[in-house]
Amino acid sequence: MVITSTSNQQMKHIKELLNKGKERRKEKLFVAEGIRMVAETPRERLEKIYVSESFLRNQPDLRGLDLSEAVIVQDQVFRQISDTQTPQGIMAIVRQSEQSLENILAQEDTLLLFLENIQDPGNLGTIMRTAEGAGVTGLIMSRDTVDIYNPKTIRATMGSLYRMPFVYVDDFCDTVHQAKKKGVCVYAAHLKGTEYYDRKDYRQSVGFMIGNEGNGLTKEAADCATDYIRIPMSGQLESLNAAVAAAILMYEARRQRHL
Amino acid sequence: MVITSTSNQQMKHIKELLNKGKERRKEKLFVAEGIRMVAETPRERLEKIYVSESFLRNQPDLRGLDLSEAVIVQDQVFRQISDTQTPQGIMAIVRQSEQSLENILAQEDTLLLFLENIQDPGNLGTIMRTAEGAGVTGLIMSRDTVDIYNPKTIRATMGSLYRMPFVYVDDFCDTVHQAKKKGVCVYAAHLKGTEYYDRKDYRQSVGFMIGNEGNGLTKEAADCATDYIRIPMSGQLESLNAAVAAAILMYEARRQRHL
Repeated sequence: MVITSTSNQQMKHIKELLNKGKERRKEKLFVAEGIRMVAETPRERLEKIYVSESFLRNQPDLRGLDLSEAVIVQDQVFRQISDTQTPQGIMAIVRQSEQSLENILAQEDTLLLFLENIQDPGNLGTIMRTAEGAGVTGLIMSRDTVDIYNPKTIRATMGSLYRMPFVYVDDFCDTVHQAKKKGVCVYAAHLKGTEYYDRKDYRQSVGFMIGNEGNGLTKEAADCATDYIRIPMSGQLESLNAAVAAAILMYEARRQRHL
Repeated sequence: MVITSTSNQQMKHIKELLNKGKERRKEKLFVAEGIRMVAETPRERLEKIYVSESFLRNQPDLRGLDLSEAVIVQDQVFRQISDTQTPQGIMAIVRQSEQSLENILAQEDTLLLFLENIQDPGNLGTIMRTAEGAGVTGLIMSRDTVDIYNPKTIRATMGSLYRMPFVYVDDFCDTVHQAKKKGVCVYAAHLKGTEYYDRKDYRQSVGFMIGNEGNGLTKEAADCATDYIRIPMSGQLESLNAAVAAAILMYEARRQRHL
């Protein structure tokens, strides 16, 4: 059987999961797109795979994927459902999975990232991607941070979504305090910081707090930090992009840990 | 007089300048949007300012802008012309201005960025913004790099567009060679690099070459470099976002120069 209409129930379901965070949260599902994302999905979390007719015809490198139970979709329908401009012809419905805060905080030599209210899906995905590269051990996000299962975020993670431990928390400040009790030194990236980020020692357990793109950290959140740090800026710039600021801090920690 | 239709010649002109790089290049003009970008535009480059009716009514902080010759546009028309989702109600047609390669290369203690075929407008803008913060002295772009006057790029620069010297060059490799002749040590960020970026000394004149988001540097370009460097990555990541990679390198240079 081939799905030939966008009004097919399964197609409508995918469209909802792509467009509506609320629907994703309710069903604890999301949509992974592209051969790489689908192939990297842990098998036990794969609910259903959809492929376009031409995808099947082109006999792509399946990277070990089993398509015997995949649902086939007409090319034109697939293109209309897809969230990308040039769809590869494969997507999957995948079960969400969060790590527990306890596990994230129980690790040794932690390098944590605390994100408060990051709103740009691309920024969040880029931060997660960079975090994997920098050796971050966990990503802790305030509840009002953009949905990590937003299709734009997923694309920007380049697969880190499946490898980087992350959790959304209801009480951001309380979580910072919990981390501090476990011996994590939590630094708030803040324009009020008097000490430059590269003057601190990040070889012990540390965390970095990064705030919203436009407004930075709330006063309440910044007050929870062990200390403020600042990334110096030449010229007349008032701030750096949130993903860039996070990258500079994470990679400084990585640099120090590998000296 | 108030412009009341999107088919007004001036409105059509703005739309063309927003949407078409070719048109921008032909006329050597571009559109700056938002009070901050317009206010930061050097006066001698301002061709014409457009404001919405409600912008005028709200008596905003004009940051020294003179609106006496501004053209007034109906709110609804302004919204349709604007490239942003929630327009502030002010935009301007601005004359393009490039620095000369000679001037950029003539500086002392240069910190240069060589961008080859960066395609994402947001990435390019973010790179320029970060470059200002890191104290980069000039941005050199291959001709096939995305247009710096793309509205998305302009927004992402956060005003750095007016402060960071930049130039597009026809012969990318020849330009790298010219810089090397002036004593600039040019490093190619490359997965083939065996030495980590933080093991090099960037306190002399240096340049970093960053390649296309998907493919990295072309072999031809990478071969022009003085040396390869690599940003180490933990986990299973294959690459970093181009703007993130550029930020890590630029800020490592800044860190070393301010020790």
